[in-house]
Amino acid sequence: MSRKYRVGILGATGMVGQRFIELLVDHPQFEVTAVAASDRSQGKTFGEACTWRLNGEMPTAVRTLPVQPPAPPLDCDLVFSSLPGEIARETEGSFAAAGYPVISNSSAFRMDEDVPLLIPEVNHEHIGLLEQQRGKYAKGGFIVTNPNCSTIMIALALAPLHAAFGIDACVATTLQALSGAGYPGVASLDIIDNVLPFIGGEEEKIEAETVKILGRFNESRIEPAPMAVSAQCHRVNVADGHMAAVRVKFARKPSLENLRDALTDFRSLPQELGLHTAPAAPIAIRDEENRPQPKLDRDAGRGMTVTVGRIKPDSVLDYRFVALSHNTIRGAAGAAILNAELLVALGRL
Amino acid sequence: MSRKYRVGILGATGMVGQRFIELLVDHPQFEVTAVAASDRSQGKTFGEACTWRLNGEMPTAVRTLPVQPPAPPLDCDLVFSSLPGEIARETEGSFAAAGYPVISNSSAFRMDEDVPLLIPEVNHEHIGLLEQQRGKYAKGGFIVTNPNCSTIMIALALAPLHAAFGIDACVATTLQALSGAGYPGVASLDIIDNVLPFIGGEEEKIEAETVKILGRFNESRIEPAPMAVSAQCHRVNVADGHMAAVRVKFARKPSLENLRDALTDFRSLPQELGLHTAPAAPIAIRDEENRPQPKLDRDAGRGMTVTVGRIKPDSVLDYRFVALSHNTIRGAAGAAILNAELLVALGRL
Amino acid sequence: MSRKYRVGILGATGMVGQRFIELLVDHPQFEVTAVAASDRSQGKTFGEACTWRLNGEMPTAVRTLPVQPPAPPLDCDLVFSSLPGEIARETEGSFAAAGYPVISNSSAFRMDEDVPLLIPEVNHEHIGLLEQQRGKYAKGGFIVTNPNCSTIMIALALAPLHAAFGIDACVATTLQALSGAGYPGVASLDIIDNVLPFIGGEEEKIEAETVKILGRFNESRIEPAPMAVSAQCHRVNVADGHMAAVRVKFARKPSLENLRDALTDFRSLPQELGLHTAPAAPIAIRDEENRPQPKLDRDAGRGMTVTVGRIKPDSVLDYRFVALSHNTIRGAAGAAILNAELLVALGRL
Amino acid sequence: MSRKYRVGILGATGMVGQRFIELLVDHPQFEVTAVAASDRSQGKTFGEACTWRLNGEMPTAVRTLPVQPPAPPLDCDLVFSSLPGEIARETEGSFAAAGYPVISNSSAFRMDEDVPLLIPEVNHEHIGLLEQQRGKYAKGGFIVTNPNCSTIMIALALAPLHAAFGIDACVATTLQALSGAGYPGVASLDIIDNVLPFIGGEEEKIEAETVKILGRFNESRIEPAPMAVSAQCHRVNVADGHMAAVRVKFARKPSLENLRDALTDFRSLPQELGLHTAPAAPIAIRDEENRPQPKLDRDAGRGMTVTVGRIKPDSVLDYRFVALSHNTIRGAAGAAILNAELLVALGRL
Repeated sequence: MSRKYRVGILGATGMVGQRFIELLVDHPQFEVTAVAASDRSQGKTFGEACTWRLNGEMPTAVRTLPVQPPAPPLDCDLVFSSLPGEIARETEGSFAAAGYPVISNSSAFRMDEDVPLLIPEVNHEHIGLLEQQRGKYAKGGFIVTNPNCSTIMIALALAPLHAAFGIDACVATTLQALSGAGYPGVASLDIIDNVLPFIGGEEEKIEAETVKILGRFNESRIEPAPMAVSAQCHRVNVADGHMAAVRVKFARKPSLENLRDALTDFRSLPQELGLHTAPAAPIAIRDEENRPQPKLDRDAGRGMTVTVGRIKPDSVLDYRFVALSHNTIRGAAGAAILNAELLVALGRL
Repeated sequence: MSRKYRVGILGATGMVGQRFIELLVDHPQFEVTAVAASDRSQGKTFGEACTWRLNGEMPTAVRTLPVQPPAPPLDCDLVFSSLPGEIARETEGSFAAAGYPVISNSSAFRMDEDVPLLIPEVNHEHIGLLEQQRGKYAKGGFIVTNPNCSTIMIALALAPLHAAFGIDACVATTLQALSGAGYPGVASLDIIDNVLPFIGGEEEKIEAETVKILGRFNESRIEPAPMAVSAQCHRVNVADGHMAAVRVKFARKPSLENLRDALTDFRSLPQELGLHTAPAAPIAIRDEENRPQPKLDRDAGRGMTVTVGRIKPDSVLDYRFVALSHNTIRGAAGAAILNAELLVALGRL
Repeated sequence: MSRKYRVGILGATGMVGQRFIELLVDHPQFEVTAVAASDRSQGKTFGEACTWRLNGEMPTAVRTLPVQPPAPPLDCDLVFSSLPGEIARETEGSFAAAGYPVISNSSAFRMDEDVPLLIPEVNHEHIGLLEQQRGKYAKGGFIVTNPNCSTIMIALALAPLHAAFGIDACVATTLQALSGAGYPGVASLDIIDNVLPFIGGEEEKIEAETVKILGRFNESRIEPAPMAVSAQCHRVNVADGHMAAVRVKFARKPSLENLRDALTDFRSLPQELGLHTAPAAPIAIRDEENRPQPKLDRDAGRGMTVTVGRIKPDSVLDYRFVALSHNTIRGAAGAAILNAELLVALGRL
Repeated sequence: MSRKYRVGILGATGMVGQRFIELLVDHPQFEVTAVAASDRSQGKTFGEACTWRLNGEMPTAVRTLPVQPPAPPLDCDLVFSSLPGEIARETEGSFAAAGYPVISNSSAFRMDEDVPLLIPEVNHEHIGLLEQQRGKYAKGGFIVTNPNCSTIMIALALAPLHAAFGIDACVATTLQALSGAGYPGVASLDIIDNVLPFIGGEEEKIEAETVKILGRFNESRIEPAPMAVSAQCHRVNVADGHMAAVRVKFARKPSLENLRDALTDFRSLPQELGLHTAPAAPIAIRDEENRPQPKLDRDAGRGMTVTVGRIKPDSVLDYRFVALSHNTIRGAAGAAILNAELLVALGRL
């Protein structure tokens, strides 16, 4: 490739925005040329406007970029968006209308009929939905989304099982990290010595998105996967790393060994294509009785691997296990970047 | 009542032992006259041997009691036991054999065929099992146990639902507090910024104990409740207060309103008898979308009420909700004391 | 007393406002008749507007009170104020001008020459400053303040030592609780697995307020105590309970025993008058090597006692110790209420 | 260098032992050839015996090493030791007597007159003390120690200031991380929502070690630095990263600018020699008002840089600042490895 794609970050000062910037340092295909935010940071440089909240220092290259309003035009070839829900729909739509590919982590368009809700290892063929957007946005703009941070982890773990054995029902109970709420997000007084059994909209998102992701693309639209999904969501006192206790009922119940093999052997198009952000294995199994743990496993595969442990027969459904992944990498910024890498590889960018 | 029962505490220096002592201060029916512990504290006074880990000061009355070995004879009419599993079976058995009523929080005898696994609001008729112990222990000794700290909360919430509508299946996912592991218990380095998806033996206990508790006493033994129970257990960074995300499938699916009413209206023998430690309502419903929370709800009913919230239809089973209770009060010391109060009221002590 | 004083709470929905309400339930001299807040909660009842963040339930009596704007007139005899700094000066001034006694926890007026910065056990004679306010506010209004939450603890521990031995210098390093920042206050992502070595304005407040509090009232103004005070402040991951590591250099260095006696024997006017909120002993000494601790000692004296431990000779100054008290009770709402009780007892209300 | 030194790790399964192993992966001069531990892990391979508690996976190379008793002979050229205090003195002495260079992180020998208490940037000339050990240990064995984890940070920050301006007194108040207590170390129930104002022996170590480290080597022994040091130590709920609030009184009080320059410009022999583990700058200054923070700054210089912030004039001593460093890297394993690298560079190994 002769030159890098120039990318703009919408919502650049937020937690996911900062992850975008961190993950794009030295990326072989993308370079950040524009940063936009809807808050009062406009008019300042990014170095002035943004308090860097990730480990290490703010990357040098973005410090002098001016923070711009999140509206076209921006000096870039495509945008990554992690805007708050309330403004995402209008803003992302206006970028698509102005001809920009929009690779969005926001929830605004995820459930739209003509928008791919993409996990490259799981449903890369859903990219075909982009044909449905052609008439909508002039100038070649389009919108691709990635799922909710918990949904990605759950759907990724379910994908090889659904492909091999058919899933009838999935019961997922999450223990989610603080960074999923953004910054400032959860007040410390609410979470010290505590658990919050509620995350606004989360249970509904997991239940709806999972069946779209695992659905079949029939060349014009997505037929939702014929499975029931139940989600109960909790916020726990962990900085990064979402966990889900998952039970699964199968159409064709596999042996424990076959189930393990399906998870362990899972590879898909991103691995075949050698996409930069794709982990060697999308799913890693830990056999210790007390794994996965957020602190020990969230950075597996540089944050892109879903770690699965405690695989057991279940007395109500068929099997159960515990899944864990990094919610702002595999669950947000890394997910969107992998989506963009797939679009490049498939000639869609 | 002319005089108080004199009680000995086995495992008095542990977390649950200290709760026993705290809850028995000024108790109208019991007074602590002996303390025993298996550790190196024997030969000292309780004030010297025990580092008090509950809020406030160690009660004055126990400070000068000598710490004795956990073996009969002890200067008391009955014993409360919270000994570690490995020594509980032999020790509790020897006390029963020596003629002491043993009111145990340990797991050793819970699943024995002739031992009541008692929650006074749920299965007080299981006390009838004590007839089966008559031949076993000379001199009037016997053993009554209370369930595991998570099981109590789950079984108590299920009891009125099972009575009214019949439960076919229950899926419970727990988020459990640190005090459940005793002291020193969980290392701080293991739980800061972390969740542990494993508690030794806990899932098995919840699955086995629940069907015994909700089983029917046919005048000679317990017929386990014909329901499937699935448990996944996690340790979270909370001091006190176990939480369980629960889904239930019914034989006769109720309306949401009838389900709520069954929980809200639940009263049982302890309430009718006005037992000292019995809460006015065994179950309290919170309607806020983000309740129950350990920090806000664990002390409901002085730690004896199970708080239930987030009652919703479930897309895989029939309904779901979140339950919470204080694991060392309703889930341990308070449970045993309520058992003893019931035995007194029924003339068994 | 034939009837209770009717009090209004300014900033009633905040953390300290809620403590005021909690501490005034069943108070023998005060009843809450008005609540005011500067936020968007006006027009609602207090029950609707306020999310109760303390343990237990919102007191029934205040639920139906309308939340009013923080401006006179309010239906009350006096106001307790815990308004944010930016609006406190104008608002409290307008209440005083309208004839209300203002018992303020805000920082706005603390360092004003004619305003008592009052800790009843320490400098009750500073109430004489109110004569200086007579010309200022018509209709009998006046302003009395209590110190910053850390200052109160430090000044209270220093007071008997300064009286007995003269303090030349004090070096205080604080470890402060999250509730001191109000709600939502500190973001959870900022404090999990972390310490913040900065609290805006805190070091300056401790250094300036301490010498005013310990100063001498010469019948017209306060002569600051002739001592140097150094403060370094840190926020730690604790819900309630400020701690300070304190070193002291004396004009007349006492023996360790005399120093201990001065702290232990300290009693003052509130104890003599038997004020409702006054603890039996303002200062309690713990001799265990690992006390005081926030979790174990913050509720001493129902949150009004300062616990002191680890008293040792110091190799740079003369002595050192660690002090701890409840920052929203002795350090805020309880402090203001004790101030009001003293004013009642002295016939100033 | 033609071949690597073969090193044995004493206390290999502990927190510091694991850091040794992590930091020695791919080290250009050392390779781990033996692991020893005093616990029940002997007879197993390291992979079987040790639960890896650092991020990532246990390094492959050590997995198959047998865990041996901590007694000579071991298959290595020198030993790194982080044994518990009680057994360190005898064990380390026996290794030295057997001819091994002992690079120790334990406290046992630190204050011995003939043992260097070494921070390579601060007192590399103290290595001359090794001449005093010649008669003591046959076969060329000797003992070099590094200071306590808090002392290193404090002494390193003081060193350039003492050299330039002379320090008369230092008052240090620490907020220390959990990993400093090893594993299992601090019980989670003791630190959740809490601070512990006591760490056994810590205050004494800081006060005694600092004056030895900053003392002058007169070719036969160390003359302690003529300064008073006061330490108060606290354990806070942080995994890694010790913090110290420091005040300093100078013999020749510098301007704030000169003080900053002395810290910023500090370089020493390890930087000149380009030692592998030496950071580019031993001390980094952060100018933000809320830095240093454990979470953000502990990994500065790969854990070997001390970060200093909040430099201000002090009203009791002359200046104050806050220092932070990684307690198991710069404060323990990294410190010992840097000591060993210096010994290699100076031809002492």
